Amino acid sequence: MAGPEIERLVQLLAKLPGLGPRSARRAALTLIKRREQLLDPLAGALAEAAAKVKTCHICGNYDSVDPCTICTDERRDTGIICVVDEVSGLWAMERSGLFRGLYHVLGGVLSPLDGIGPDDLAVGPLVTRAGAPGVREVILALSATVDGQTTAHYLADRLAPLGVTVSGLAQGVPVGGELDYLDEGTIGAALRARREIPR
Amino acid sequence: MAGPEIERLVQLLAKLPGLGPRSARRAALTLIKRREQLLDPLAGALAEAAAKVKTCHICGNYDSVDPCTICTDERRDTGIICVVDEVSGLWAMERSGLFRGLYHVLGGVLSPLDGIGPDDLAVGPLVTRAGAPGVREVILALSATVDGQTTAHYLADRLAPLGVTVSGLAQGVPVGGELDYLDEGTIGAALRARREIPR
Repeated sequence: MAGPEIERLVQLLAKLPGLGPRSARRAALTLIKRREQLLDPLAGALAEAAAKVKTCHICGNYDSVDPCTICTDERRDTGIICVVDEVSGLWAMERSGLFRGLYHVLGGVLSPLDGIGPDDLAVGPLVTRAGAPGVREVILALSATVDGQTTAHYLADRLAPLGVTVSGLAQGVPVGGELDYLDEGTIGAALRARREIPR
Repeated sequence: MAGPEIERLVQLLAKLPGLGPRSARRAALTLIKRREQLLDPLAGALAEAAAKVKTCHICGNYDSVDPCTICTDERRDTGIICVVDEVSGLWAMERSGLFRGLYHVLGGVLSPLDGIGPDDLAVGPLVTRAGAPGVREVILALSATVDGQTTAHYLADRLAPLGVTVSGLAQGVPVGGELDYLDEGTIGAALRARREIPR
């Protein structure tokens, strides 16, 4: 019904996370209708991202410079490395605004079923970085999934000989979370990690 | 936290229908991670759409040729014109595969609150087309909203002097729709338009 250019645009948009075939059609129509405000700027932004965005060779973050602005920021604590599975985890940590150390993006988690072993992830470079002088702690901020926690245990074993502190994010009730809507696993974890409330 | 190129990409993606700030971030990360399979082809498809997609000067459809392939398709019935508010409505009608006439895209619906009057829509060109020799029927396939139905009544008045049949889509229970999930307006419309079941 539409020209081949529109069909191809819809097919590519449908591959983005969060867009299905129907919303990809709506997105394509919105782009074509708002050509000057949206389509042309987006085409330019994609071309610029393709040309300028690099992967930081130290931590794996995406930035327009390599090493990235986090790795070269002198105000950050180079003694703590926070390990995340993907760049999205790094962004989530940065949004919290609480972590002032450096990062290490693994590029995924161990998954025997999908054939993803330690050699497919940035495990070797992490061990090298964690063994450098001045590194005191490695925080494993991996997803609280089976694969994520398996990966955390594996990394803790690999990092143990280095003598650095290896920690993980606390598990418990999310802020604003109602007990009624939480799964049993989360409630159990929060109960096991209960803390005395200071008087 | 990310470079300005990534921030700009996220901001533009968040303007697409169906993508909020969070899913736009996920989409941007997916694009950057899958550069060769997704980012580069999408940038190319957008540039090609910007260069080639035109608005048909007859019906308002988007296509790479003007007049569009529907307007120039000799197998289609030029005696019936289906009026839709946007190109998305035209695509939806085409997906049904049942309509073999021509289209007319209004470019919106009348909306006094938003200051959209008849001169902001392709009403004049519709009256001209509907008055041409050989046109037998105009189907008003507008949304079943207040503004859509107001527009349909207005168009029916404007088209009445031309002597063509003016029809509208039937209202009723959608196929596969469960009564329990339908609003009272739809049930009322379906009841008023009830039909005797042939024996």
